[in-house]
Amino acid sequence: MRSKALASWNESAAKQSIIDFVGRVTTAGGPDFVPAVDRIAVFDNDGTLWAESPVPVQLAFLLDRVHALASQHPEWRNQPPFKAVLENDMKAVAAAGMAGLEELGMATHAGMTTEEFELIVKDWIATAQHLKFKRPYTELTYQPMLEVLTFLRAHDFKTFIVSGGGIEFMRTFSEAVYGIPPENVVGSSIVTKYEVREGRPVLVRQPKLNFYNDKDDKPVGINNFIGRRPLAAFGNSDGDFAMLEWVAGGAGARFALIVHHDDAEREFAYDREAGLARLARGLDEGPKRGWTLVSMKKDWKRVFPFDAA
Amino acid sequence: MRSKALASWNESAAKQSIIDFVGRVTTAGGPDFVPAVDRIAVFDNDGTLWAESPVPVQLAFLLDRVHALASQHPEWRNQPPFKAVLENDMKAVAAAGMAGLEELGMATHAGMTTEEFELIVKDWIATAQHLKFKRPYTELTYQPMLEVLTFLRAHDFKTFIVSGGGIEFMRTFSEAVYGIPPENVVGSSIVTKYEVREGRPVLVRQPKLNFYNDKDDKPVGINNFIGRRPLAAFGNSDGDFAMLEWVAGGAGARFALIVHHDDAEREFAYDREAGLARLARGLDEGPKRGWTLVSMKKDWKRVFPFDAA
Repeated sequence: MRSKALASWNESAAKQSIIDFVGRVTTAGGPDFVPAVDRIAVFDNDGTLWAESPVPVQLAFLLDRVHALASQHPEWRNQPPFKAVLENDMKAVAAAGMAGLEELGMATHAGMTTEEFELIVKDWIATAQHLKFKRPYTELTYQPMLEVLTFLRAHDFKTFIVSGGGIEFMRTFSEAVYGIPPENVVGSSIVTKYEVREGRPVLVRQPKLNFYNDKDDKPVGINNFIGRRPLAAFGNSDGDFAMLEWVAGGAGARFALIVHHDDAEREFAYDREAGLARLARGLDEGPKRGWTLVSMKKDWKRVFPFDAA
Repeated sequence: MRSKALASWNESAAKQSIIDFVGRVTTAGGPDFVPAVDRIAVFDNDGTLWAESPVPVQLAFLLDRVHALASQHPEWRNQPPFKAVLENDMKAVAAAGMAGLEELGMATHAGMTTEEFELIVKDWIATAQHLKFKRPYTELTYQPMLEVLTFLRAHDFKTFIVSGGGIEFMRTFSEAVYGIPPENVVGSSIVTKYEVREGRPVLVRQPKLNFYNDKDDKPVGINNFIGRRPLAAFGNSDGDFAMLEWVAGGAGARFALIVHHDDAEREFAYDREAGLARLARGLDEGPKRGWTLVSMKKDWKRVFPFDAA
C-alpha cells in the first residue's frame, strides 16, 4: 500500500486495520476483491469527521439564529424554549429535550426557500467561531479522517456522509470541507413544498420533520439514498451503532470503525456520559465484533489540520 | 461537437437543441460555462427512457405478483381490487384508482426484506415479456435516449433517474440497462424498518408509503437526493411538468425536453387522453417556454436498440 497514506496516524493496530481492509477489497483476484462500482464508504459527521463538542455545530447555528431572529419575535422573550436560549440558560435548553429542540429547529430552519436557507447557512459558517479553539468550525475537521477519505478515494471508493445533521445544512460545506459533493450527503430533512412564486419555481421549507437520520434509521437512510450496503462505516457514538452493525453485517470483507474521544488535551474526552454523543454500547461491543476502536489520544499523531505535523 | 453522437436522431431542431445546450455549458470561457461538478441531468424513466405502454413495467410486475401470490391468499378471490386482477378485469383494476393501486402495491411490494425484494424483481425482470413486442422489458429502452445519456456523460454530466417508479424496483436494473448506478436513482419508496434477525441485520419493507416521487414532488425528490438544481431534465408526461419547470427555472443555460409518443407504428401514440401518462400541459406550454418537444415519429431514426439502424 502507499506508504505516505494516513500520515497523521501512529503506526498502531488501528491504522493497520484500515490498510489491511483496503488491501483485501482492492486486490484483483483475491478472495475479498470488490469491483470499484461497489466500493462505498459512509461517514458520520459530528464527532467523526469534525468536532461536536461542547455543542454540535448545527446546534450552535440554531442558537445563533434564535438570537438573530429575536427582534422579529418579541413573544419569544417569555416563551420556552426560546426564552431559555435568549437568556443563554443552556440547562433549561437541555431540559426541553428533543421536543424543545425540534421546536427551536423548525422556528430557525423553516419558512424560507431552500436557496434562502443555503445563503443563511453559508453566511453563518463563514463567520462563526468555535468557543474553545477560536476558529471557524470548518477548520475543526480531523486531519487523520481527512486522510482516510483521501486514501479510500485513491482506491476508487465513493465516500458518503451519513449524519443525523440536516442534509441541507451539511451540503453547504461538504464539498469544500471534505470533497464530498451534495448528492453524497445523507442526513435529516424537513418537508419541502414546491411553489411557483411570480413565475419563479421555488422549494419552501415547511416546519415539519421529514426524516431523522439517526440510530436505527441510519441504515434506512443509507438504503434509501445509496441503494446498497456500504463496505465500510465510520462513526463515533451509539447513534452510529446500527449503521456500523448494518455495514459490518454484509457478506465478504467489511470494515467498521469508532472514533473514541479520549483526548481532553488536544480535543475533548467524553463517552458514556455524553447525551446526544453518548458512546457506551459501541465501547462494550465494538471490539468484540471486530470493529476498530480508535483512540484519538494514542492513534492520532495530530487531531486538526492546524496542529503541528 | 462529436459528429457521431446522437446517431439515431434525425438532423432536426430537436437534436440540434441538445447539441447546442451541451456546447454552451461545456465551452470553457463562454458565458454559460458550468464546471463539471455541477453538470447534472435528470431523466424520467417510464415513457422517457423505456416503453410504458400499454401498462407501466412496474404495474405489470405488480399484476404478475398478485397472480403468483394468489395461492397463499385465498381471500383475494372475493376481495377487490385483488379479485379484479385475478380475473384479468383491467377496467375494474383501473376503476379502483390510486387507492386500489396502493393496496395492490403494498400487498406485493412489502413484507419482505430489501434483499428478498431485490431477488424477486431480478427473477421477474429476467423472464417477463412485453405484450406487444414479445421481448424482455429491459430491451424496450429508447435507443436515441441511451445516446443522450452517453453524450451527456461524455461531457462530464452526472445522469440521474427521477421517476414515480419504485426506487428499489428500478435500482435492480438501472446500472445494467442505463449505466446509472443505484445511488443515482430517485424514485418512490415505502417505509423500511431496521431489524436484527438471529444476529443478521436486515431492512424490512413495511406496507406504508414513504414518498411518492411524482408531479410537484419530483423537484422535492431531486432536492432531497441530489441537493442542487440540475441543468437539464427529460420527461414525457405532465407528471414531469414540475420537474421540467424547476430545472428550466434555474439561472444560466438550462434544458428541458419532452418525448411525445406520436409513433403508433414503431411504438405507441398517446398524449392528452392517457391516464397516468397524460401529456397536455406540456404540449400546450412546453414549446412556448422554450422546451424541446421531441416527436418520436419525426425526430428519431429508430426507437429501440433492436430496430434496424
